[in-house]
Amino acid sequence: VRYYEDLEVGVTSRAEADHLVTEEEILEFGRRWDPQPFHTDPEAAAASTFGGLVASTVHLFALLTKLGMTDNELAAMSALGMTDLVNHAPLRPGDRVRHQSTVVEKRSSKSRPGTGIVVMRGMLVNQRDEPVFSAEIASLVHFRPT
Amino acid sequence: VRYYEDLEVGVTSRAEADHLVTEEEILEFGRRWDPQPFHTDPEAAAASTFGGLVASTVHLFALLTKLGMTDNELAAMSALGMTDLVNHAPLRPGDRVRHQSTVVEKRSSKSRPGTGIVVMRGMLVNQRDEPVFSAEIASLVHFRPT
Repeated sequence: VRYYEDLEVGVTSRAEADHLVTEEEILEFGRRWDPQPFHTDPEAAAASTFGGLVASTVHLFALLTKLGMTDNELAAMSALGMTDLVNHAPLRPGDRVRHQSTVVEKRSSKSRPGTGIVVMRGMLVNQRDEPVFSAEIASLVHFRPT
Repeated sequence: VRYYEDLEVGVTSRAEADHLVTEEEILEFGRRWDPQPFHTDPEAAAASTFGGLVASTVHLFALLTKLGMTDNELAAMSALGMTDLVNHAPLRPGDRVRHQSTVVEKRSSKSRPGTGIVVMRGMLVNQRDEPVFSAEIASLVHFRPT
Protein backbone atom coordinates (compact mmCIF):
# COMPACT_ATOMS: atom_id res chain seq x y z
CA VAL A 1 0.00 0.00 0.00
CA ARG A 2 1.28 3.46 -0.89
CA TYR A 3 0.76 6.34 1.54
CA TYR A 4 0.79 10.09 0.87
CA GLU A 5 4.53 10.28 1.65
CA ASP A 6 5.28 7.54 -0.93
CA LEU A 7 3.90 9.56 -3.84
CA GLU A 8 6.23 11.88 -5.70
CA VAL A 9 5.02 14.44 -8.24
CA GLY A 10 6.13 13.56 -11.76
CA VAL A 11 6.79 9.88 -11.05
CA THR A 12 5.08 7.32 -13.31
CA SER A 13 4.41 3.71 -12.37
CA ARG A 14 3.11 0.98 -14.63
CA ALA A 15 1.11 -2.11 -13.68
CA GLU A 16 2.15 -5.59 -14.77
CA ALA A 17 -1.39 -6.73 -15.59
CA ASP A 18 -2.68 -6.28 -19.11
CA HIS A 19 -6.00 -6.91 -20.81
CA LEU A 20 -6.59 -8.33 -24.29
CA VAL A 21 -9.45 -6.51 -26.00
CA THR A 22 -11.59 -8.82 -28.14
CA GLU A 23 -14.03 -7.96 -30.92
CA GLU A 24 -16.73 -9.64 -28.84
CA GLU A 25 -16.10 -7.34 -25.88
CA ILE A 26 -16.11 -4.20 -28.07
CA LEU A 27 -19.42 -5.25 -29.66
CA GLU A 28 -20.97 -6.14 -26.29
CA PHE A 29 -20.21 -2.70 -24.79
CA GLY A 30 -21.17 -0.85 -27.94
CA ARG A 31 -24.48 -2.61 -28.51
CA ARG A 32 -25.58 -2.21 -24.92
CA TRP A 33 -24.31 1.24 -23.93
CA ASP A 34 -23.08 3.23 -26.95
CA PRO A 35 -24.78 2.00 -30.13
CA GLN A 36 -22.86 3.84 -32.84
CA PRO A 37 -21.93 1.92 -36.02
CA PHE A 38 -18.16 2.00 -35.37
CA HIS A 39 -18.76 0.21 -32.02
CA THR A 40 -21.50 -2.21 -33.08
CA ASP A 41 -21.16 -3.28 -36.72
CA PRO A 42 -17.84 -4.53 -38.19
CA GLU A 43 -18.86 -3.77 -41.79
CA ALA A 44 -20.18 -0.27 -41.13
CA ALA A 45 -17.09 0.37 -38.97
CA ALA A 46 -14.79 -0.64 -41.84
CA ALA A 47 -16.47 2.00 -44.01
CA SER A 48 -16.25 4.69 -41.29
CA THR A 49 -13.44 7.19 -40.67
CA PHE A 50 -12.00 4.70 -38.13
CA GLY A 51 -11.56 2.01 -40.79
CA GLY A 52 -12.75 -0.69 -38.40
CA LEU A 53 -14.30 -1.42 -35.02
CA VAL A 54 -13.10 0.74 -32.12
CA ALA A 55 -13.91 0.50 -28.43
CA SER A 56 -16.52 2.85 -26.94
CA THR A 57 -15.37 5.40 -24.36
CA VAL A 58 -17.57 3.48 -21.87
CA HIS A 59 -15.37 0.44 -22.48
CA LEU A 60 -12.18 2.52 -22.08
CA PHE A 61 -13.51 3.95 -18.83
CA ALA A 62 -14.25 0.43 -17.55
CA LEU A 63 -10.74 -0.76 -18.47
CA LEU A 64 -9.15 2.28 -16.81
CA THR A 65 -11.10 1.53 -13.62
CA LYS A 66 -10.37 -2.20 -13.55
CA LEU A 67 -6.70 -2.02 -14.49
CA GLY A 68 -6.18 1.04 -12.27
CA MET A 69 -7.17 -1.00 -9.22
CA THR A 70 -4.30 -3.40 -9.87
CA ASP A 71 -1.86 -0.50 -10.34
CA ASN A 72 -2.54 1.98 -7.55
CA GLU A 73 -2.50 0.35 -4.17
CA LEU A 74 -3.18 3.70 -2.58
CA ALA A 75 -4.13 4.10 1.07
CA ALA A 76 -7.06 6.13 -0.22
CA MET A 77 -10.08 7.06 1.87
CA SER A 78 -12.12 8.06 -1.14
CA ALA A 79 -12.03 9.27 -4.71
CA LEU A 80 -12.86 12.98 -4.85
CA GLY A 81 -13.54 13.35 -8.55
CA MET A 82 -12.40 12.73 -12.07
CA THR A 83 -11.69 15.16 -14.86
CA ASP A 84 -10.00 15.67 -18.27
CA LEU A 85 -10.95 12.42 -20.00
CA VAL A 86 -9.03 12.25 -23.28
CA ASN A 87 -9.18 9.74 -26.13
CA HIS A 88 -5.65 9.64 -27.57
CA ALA A 89 -5.88 6.76 -30.07
CA PRO A 90 -8.52 4.17 -31.06
CA LEU A 91 -8.56 0.83 -29.24
CA ARG A 92 -9.14 -2.03 -31.70
CA PRO A 93 -9.80 -5.78 -31.48
CA GLY A 94 -6.61 -7.67 -30.61
CA ASP A 95 -4.99 -4.75 -28.81
CA ARG A 96 -3.58 -5.27 -25.33
CA VAL A 97 -3.77 -2.46 -22.80
CA ARG A 98 -1.97 -1.77 -19.55
CA HIS A 99 -2.43 0.94 -16.94
CA GLN A 100 0.11 3.52 -15.91
CA SER A 101 -0.28 6.38 -13.49
CA THR A 102 1.60 9.61 -12.91
CA VAL A 103 1.42 11.77 -9.79
CA VAL A 104 0.36 15.23 -11.03
CA GLU A 105 -0.12 17.13 -7.77
CA LYS A 106 -0.25 16.59 -4.01
CA ARG A 107 -1.14 18.78 -1.04
CA SER A 108 -2.08 18.12 2.56
CA SER A 109 -5.76 18.46 3.42
CA LYS A 110 -6.73 21.38 5.66
CA SER A 111 -10.09 19.96 6.68
CA ARG A 112 -8.92 16.38 7.34
CA PRO A 113 -5.69 16.19 9.35
CA GLY A 114 -3.62 13.12 8.57
CA THR A 115 -4.64 13.02 4.92
CA GLY A 116 -3.64 14.66 1.66
CA ILE A 117 -5.22 15.28 -1.73
CA VAL A 118 -3.38 13.53 -4.55
CA VAL A 119 -4.14 14.07 -8.23
CA MET A 120 -2.99 11.27 -10.53
CA ARG A 121 -3.22 10.89 -14.27
CA GLY A 122 -4.33 7.34 -15.07
CA MET A 123 -3.59 6.19 -18.60
CA LEU A 124 -4.22 3.14 -20.76
CA VAL A 125 -1.34 2.35 -23.12
CA ASN A 126 -1.43 -0.27 -25.87
CA GLN A 127 1.07 -3.00 -26.83
CA ARG A 128 3.11 -0.40 -28.79
CA ASP A 129 3.26 1.84 -25.69
CA GLU A 130 1.00 4.39 -27.38
CA PRO A 131 -1.40 6.37 -25.17
CA VAL A 132 -5.01 5.29 -25.71
CA PHE A 133 -7.11 6.95 -23.01
CA SER A 134 -6.41 9.03 -19.91
CA ALA A 135 -8.14 10.79 -17.05
CA GLU A 136 -7.13 12.74 -13.96
CA ILE A 137 -8.37 11.38 -10.64
CA ALA A 138 -8.20 13.18 -7.28
CA SER A 139 -8.13 11.03 -4.14
CA LEU A 140 -7.93 11.61 -0.40
CA VAL A 141 -4.87 9.59 0.74
CA HIS A 142 -3.76 8.75 4.29
CA PHE A 143 -0.43 9.82 5.74
CA ARG A 144 1.82 6.92 6.78
CA PRO A 145 0.90 5.82 10.31
CA THR A 146 3.52 6.82 12.86
CA VAL B 1 -31.81 17.10 -34.95
CA ARG B 2 -30.56 20.19 -33.14
CA TYR B 3 -28.07 22.50 -34.81
CA TYR B 4 -25.70 25.04 -33.26
CA GLU B 5 -28.32 27.81 -33.62
CA ASP B 6 -30.90 25.72 -31.72
CA LEU B 7 -28.82 25.56 -28.54
CA GLU B 8 -29.22 28.31 -25.97
CA VAL B 9 -26.88 28.72 -23.02
CA GLY B 10 -28.61 27.96 -19.71
CA VAL B 11 -31.44 25.94 -21.22
CA THR B 12 -32.05 22.43 -19.83
CA SER B 13 -33.84 19.64 -21.67
CA ARG B 14 -34.86 16.29 -20.25
CA ALA B 15 -35.28 12.99 -22.11
CA GLU B 16 -38.44 10.92 -21.81
CA ALA B 17 -36.61 7.59 -21.62
CA ASP B 18 -35.68 6.21 -18.22
CA HIS B 19 -33.76 3.17 -17.02
CA LEU B 20 -34.59 0.93 -14.06
CA VAL B 21 -31.41 -0.07 -12.23
CA THR B 22 -31.51 -3.63 -10.91
CA GLU B 23 -29.37 -5.29 -8.26
CA GLU B 24 -28.27 -7.76 -10.92
CA GLU B 25 -26.96 -4.98 -13.18
CA ILE B 26 -25.10 -3.28 -10.29
CA LEU B 27 -23.45 -6.59 -9.33
CA GLU B 28 -22.55 -7.42 -12.94
CA PHE B 29 -20.73 -4.10 -13.48
CA GLY B 30 -19.08 -4.16 -10.09
CA ARG B 31 -17.82 -7.74 -10.26
CA ARG B 32 -16.41 -7.30 -13.74
CA TRP B 33 -14.99 -3.76 -13.75
CA ASP B 34 -14.90 -2.26 -10.24
CA PRO B 35 -14.71 -5.03 -7.62
CA GLN B 36 -15.19 -3.12 -4.38
CA PRO B 37 -17.44 -4.64 -1.69
CA PHE B 38 -20.16 -1.96 -1.93
CA HIS B 39 -20.57 -2.83 -5.65
CA THR B 40 -20.21 -6.60 -5.47
CA ASP B 41 -21.50 -8.02 -2.19
CA PRO B 42 -24.95 -7.10 -0.76
CA GLU B 43 -24.02 -8.09 2.81
CA ALA B 44 -20.67 -6.29 2.87
CA ALA B 45 -22.35 -3.28 1.24
CA ALA B 46 -25.00 -3.18 3.99
CA ALA B 47 -22.22 -2.94 6.57
CA SER B 48 -20.36 -0.21 4.61
CA THR B 49 -20.79 3.58 4.88
CA PHE B 50 -23.24 3.34 1.95
CA GLY B 51 -25.59 1.07 3.93
CA GLY B 52 -26.24 -1.07 0.86
CA LEU B 53 -25.26 -1.78 -2.74
CA VAL B 54 -24.47 1.25 -4.92
CA ALA B 55 -23.68 1.44 -8.61
CA SER B 56 -20.05 1.77 -9.73
CA THR B 57 -19.00 4.98 -11.50
CA VAL B 58 -18.37 2.76 -14.56
CA HIS B 59 -22.07 1.87 -14.50
CA LEU B 60 -23.06 5.55 -14.08
CA PHE B 61 -20.83 6.50 -17.01
CA ALA B 62 -22.46 3.79 -19.17
CA LEU B 63 -25.95 5.02 -18.24
CA LEU B 64 -25.01 8.65 -18.95
CA THR B 65 -23.74 7.62 -22.40
CA LYS B 66 -26.73 5.45 -23.31
CA LEU B 67 -29.44 7.74 -22.01
CA GLY B 68 -27.63 10.81 -23.37
CA MET B 69 -27.94 9.46 -26.91
CA THR B 70 -31.72 9.44 -26.60
CA ASP B 71 -31.70 13.01 -25.23
CA ASN B 72 -29.30 15.00 -27.38
CA GLU B 73 -30.08 14.70 -31.03
CA LEU B 74 -27.21 17.05 -31.83
CA ALA B 75 -25.91 17.58 -35.35
CA ALA B 76 -22.50 16.79 -33.88
CA MET B 77 -19.42 15.99 -35.94
CA SER B 78 -17.52 14.64 -32.99
CA ALA B 79 -17.14 14.71 -29.24
CA LEU B 80 -14.10 16.78 -28.28
CA GLY B 81 -13.69 15.71 -24.67
CA MET B 82 -15.30 15.14 -21.32
CA THR B 83 -14.49 16.68 -17.98
CA ASP B 84 -15.73 17.32 -14.42
CA LEU B 85 -17.30 13.95 -13.61
CA VAL B 86 -19.16 14.30 -10.31
CA ASN B 87 -20.96 11.71 -8.15
CA HIS B 88 -23.80 13.61 -6.47
CA ALA B 89 -25.74 10.79 -4.77
CA PRO B 90 -25.56 6.99 -4.69
CA LEU B 91 -27.54 5.00 -7.25
CA ARG B 92 -29.22 1.99 -5.62
CA PRO B 93 -31.16 -1.08 -6.80
CA GLY B 94 -34.71 -0.14 -7.80
CA ASP B 95 -33.85 3.46 -8.68
CA ARG B 96 -34.93 4.85 -12.05
CA VAL B 97 -32.69 7.35 -13.81
CA ARG B 98 -33.28 9.81 -16.64
CA HIS B 99 -30.91 12.07 -18.54
CA GLN B 100 -31.05 15.83 -18.69
CA SER B 101 -28.66 18.21 -20.37
CA THR B 102 -27.91 21.89 -19.98
CA VAL B 103 -26.06 24.07 -22.48
CA VAL B 104 -23.12 25.54 -20.55
CA GLU B 105 -21.22 27.39 -23.26
CA LYS B 106 -21.13 27.83 -27.05
CA ARG B 107 -18.77 29.54 -29.46
CA SER B 108 -18.14 29.33 -33.20
CA SER B 109 -15.08 27.36 -34.29
CA LYS B 110 -12.22 29.38 -35.81
CA SER B 111 -10.55 26.41 -37.45
CA ARG B 112 -13.69 24.76 -38.86
CA PRO B 113 -16.07 27.22 -40.55
CA GLY B 114 -19.71 26.19 -40.35
CA THR B 115 -19.33 24.56 -36.94
CA GLY B 116 -19.31 25.60 -33.31
CA ILE B 117 -18.04 24.20 -30.04
CA VAL B 118 -20.83 23.47 -27.57
CA VAL B 119 -20.25 22.45 -23.95
CA MET B 120 -23.16 20.65 -22.30
CA ARG B 121 -23.59 19.31 -18.80
CA GLY B 122 -25.16 15.86 -18.99
CA MET B 123 -26.78 14.66 -15.78
CA LEU B 124 -28.50 11.54 -14.48
CA VAL B 125 -31.41 12.30 -12.13
CA ASN B 126 -33.30 9.71 -10.12
CA GLN B 127 -37.04 9.17 -9.61
CA ARG B 128 -37.06 11.88 -6.91
CA ASP B 129 -35.42 14.34 -9.36
CA GLU B 130 -32.21 14.27 -7.30
CA PRO B 131 -28.90 14.65 -9.19
CA VAL B 132 -26.96 11.36 -9.25
CA PHE B 133 -24.04 11.83 -11.66
CA SER B 134 -22.93 14.53 -14.09
CA ALA B 135 -20.21 15.34 -16.59
CA GLU B 136 -19.40 18.15 -19.01
CA ILE B 137 -19.06 17.17 -22.66
CA ALA B 138 -17.69 19.40 -25.45
CA SER B 139 -18.86 18.66 -29.01
CA LEU B 140 -18.29 20.12 -32.46
CA VAL B 141 -21.79 20.93 -33.77
CA HIS B 142 -22.85 21.94 -37.30
CA PHE B 143 -24.52 25.22 -38.12
CA ARG B 144 -28.00 24.88 -39.62
CA PRO B 145 -27.69 24.33 -43.38
CA THR B 146 -28.78 27.39 -45.35
